[in-house]
Amino acid sequence: MEKINWDERGIIPVVVQDHETRDVVMLAYMNEEAFNLTVRTGTMHYYSRSRKTLWLKGETSGHTQKVKNLYLDCDNDAILAVVDQKVAACHTGYWSCFYRVLDGTWKVVGRKVFDEKEVYK
Amino acid sequence: MEKINWDERGIIPVVVQDHETRDVVMLAYMNEEAFNLTVRTGTMHYYSRSRKTLWLKGETSGHTQKVKNLYLDCDNDAILAVVDQKVAACHTGYWSCFYRVLDGTWKVVGRKVFDEKEVYK
Repeated sequence: MEKINWDERGIIPVVVQDHETRDVVMLAYMNEEAFNLTVRTGTMHYYSRSRKTLWLKGETSGHTQKVKNLYLDCDNDAILAVVDQKVAACHTGYWSCFYRVLDGTWKVVGRKVFDEKEVYK
Repeated sequence: MEKINWDERGIIPVVVQDHETRDVVMLAYMNEEAFNLTVRTGTMHYYSRSRKTLWLKGETSGHTQKVKNLYLDCDNDAILAVVDQKVAACHTGYWSCFYRVLDGTWKVVGRKVFDEKEVYK
């Protein structure tokens, strides 16, 4: 398989797009273990830079992401994952992590779909 | 304005989505100067990590990106730019930089829209 260019930290940024709505819902990172688990299981796994651990998206919330397709960019240093997003991508309760638009200030325009206090108790 | 979390290199990843097709066409990086220029001019500017310089997308090829909207993610450490992409995003001649899909190996499935040898002489 053509080599992924892992960066100096051994990770690669992953753009996540919902298959049905075609919304970009988040950006996260994978290390090689997360990538291999994602391919093997068909469910998105990431590497948390802050916690320095492998992370199954939706492990706590149930808001998992089923892989439809994985794409690699021209420089081999970014991945695009097209997924079936369950419920919402963002831990804040918004459908997409990109819920604020620049309009003088960053203004909330995203769709809130769950109460994060009820999901993460 | 709510602060962008520039990373330890002073940059932030920027996901670029074409407004009309809703295709994700590239991932690049901005430093603060590139961000400010983008906002002021309405045309996407980036920071090249390899060349360590500011970069106006389309400066050589003419394949510029007009800003429709800029979104910030929940952690303030990723930007989504929705743009009007002229001709193609990728320097290889493909419409999108994400022109290879994982199917055992990375297989080319993207749409080639120009001859890169004619554009970059």
